[in-house]
Amino acid sequence: MSIIYGRNPVKEAIDAGKTFNKIYFQKGSVELKELKKLALEKKIVVQEADKIRLEKMAETRNHQGVVASITEYEYSDVDDILKYAIDREEAPFVVILDKIEDPHNLGAIIRSCECAGVHGIIIQKRNACQVNDTAIKTSAGAIEHMKIARVTNITETIKQLKNEGLWIYGLDMAGEKTIYETDFSGPIGIVVGNEGNGITRLVKENCDFITNIPMKGKINSLNASVSVALTVYEVVRQKLMR
Amino acid sequence: MSIIYGRNPVKEAIDAGKTFNKIYFQKGSVELKELKKLALEKKIVVQEADKIRLEKMAETRNHQGVVASITEYEYSDVDDILKYAIDREEAPFVVILDKIEDPHNLGAIIRSCECAGVHGIIIQKRNACQVNDTAIKTSAGAIEHMKIARVTNITETIKQLKNEGLWIYGLDMAGEKTIYETDFSGPIGIVVGNEGNGITRLVKENCDFITNIPMKGKINSLNASVSVALTVYEVVRQKLMR
Repeated sequence: MSIIYGRNPVKEAIDAGKTFNKIYFQKGSVELKELKKLALEKKIVVQEADKIRLEKMAETRNHQGVVASITEYEYSDVDDILKYAIDREEAPFVVILDKIEDPHNLGAIIRSCECAGVHGIIIQKRNACQVNDTAIKTSAGAIEHMKIARVTNITETIKQLKNEGLWIYGLDMAGEKTIYETDFSGPIGIVVGNEGNGITRLVKENCDFITNIPMKGKINSLNASVSVALTVYEVVRQKLMR
Repeated sequence: MSIIYGRNPVKEAIDAGKTFNKIYFQKGSVELKELKKLALEKKIVVQEADKIRLEKMAETRNHQGVVASITEYEYSDVDDILKYAIDREEAPFVVILDKIEDPHNLGAIIRSCECAGVHGIIIQKRNACQVNDTAIKTSAGAIEHMKIARVTNITETIKQLKNEGLWIYGLDMAGEKTIYETDFSGPIGIVVGNEGNGITRLVKENCDFITNIPMKGKINSLNASVSVALTVYEVVRQKLMR
């Protein structure tokens, strides 16, 4: 985690797509209205703080009323993930997150995927949770061993992965077959949607197969990170039992 | 959730094994030292609050410096769980938690178990997380459809379940077979241990089988609630594929 401060540095960091834990704004500061609006649009957590607290965090008085903590996580590229699989002489095994919002879920997904031997996770740059400190903490160390790539357009990435020979499986209640009836052999990508809304229509249309997790109770709704764990572990099971 | 206050009522509620969300103690109150010590021994969350806040919560000045919020969750008996399975003409499918501590994990376990059609969950009365408001919230509504029984001695309960014809499977890294190589048919109980320490030795010795979840990464540690989800869903898979 590192600290930046001042109007321009914070604005530049937002524009550059850095991952913020939080931006602290000086109480009652009117000049910062625009910057605050921009931060909220980017779904960054903002908080009011008094002048003394800002000075302490920035270790200077020249903070101009705004101090931010950012996460310096180094993302990988999609190509890095595929290359990693090839280097291990394994069929690529990738998880694609279509707008997961909760950092606890992202961290839990990273942890379960690491245990299942997933080669990498692809997340969206916008309208989705980034690898922030909460996600890192929840991953329980797994983040150190997992490649995560950020992309602007999930649909384009799915097309690219299909060109590379991957079969793309979308997880959705509407799937005709359960994950247990689905053949996950070969190079694969598994797409999981947002906590509330599932995968978006366009993404779903670009999947090769839609598969579901059977529900035996009354609530019919698993946590998103549990859904990912069940699916990647079904891939593990099929590999073991082959 | 309901509010109780006053030294004796709070002490009696502790002695009766009620489930506390939190006990608020008046700042700097010396007479309450013993009660606070007792609360901490029982792993109840305590917090200091000022007189005015306590008065607001208790809606009276006669709170004697202590106000507590308790959860009025109605537990079932082990027999209720078994009867429920018989009424549905299904082989009993029970999950036994050997000292799960984190209410988020307990809530997540309740949610996944409900989706997998588990008939009931058994937890320990002492040194374990009870069904508090955090667990209820995390269960995402599943708590309404899940029977949860509290027992004093897990080992005795396992013996009782074995007498009723259940096969008991302990989840542990030391298991010889993976969950995928284990036959979960018939009436079963699955035992899952504490987040940090796993299942206790005595409980392990009383299991019929020890089974493990295969690890394909470097961290070798799944979240406890994910471990439960993977195991109960392997039971679902085996039922579906039979």
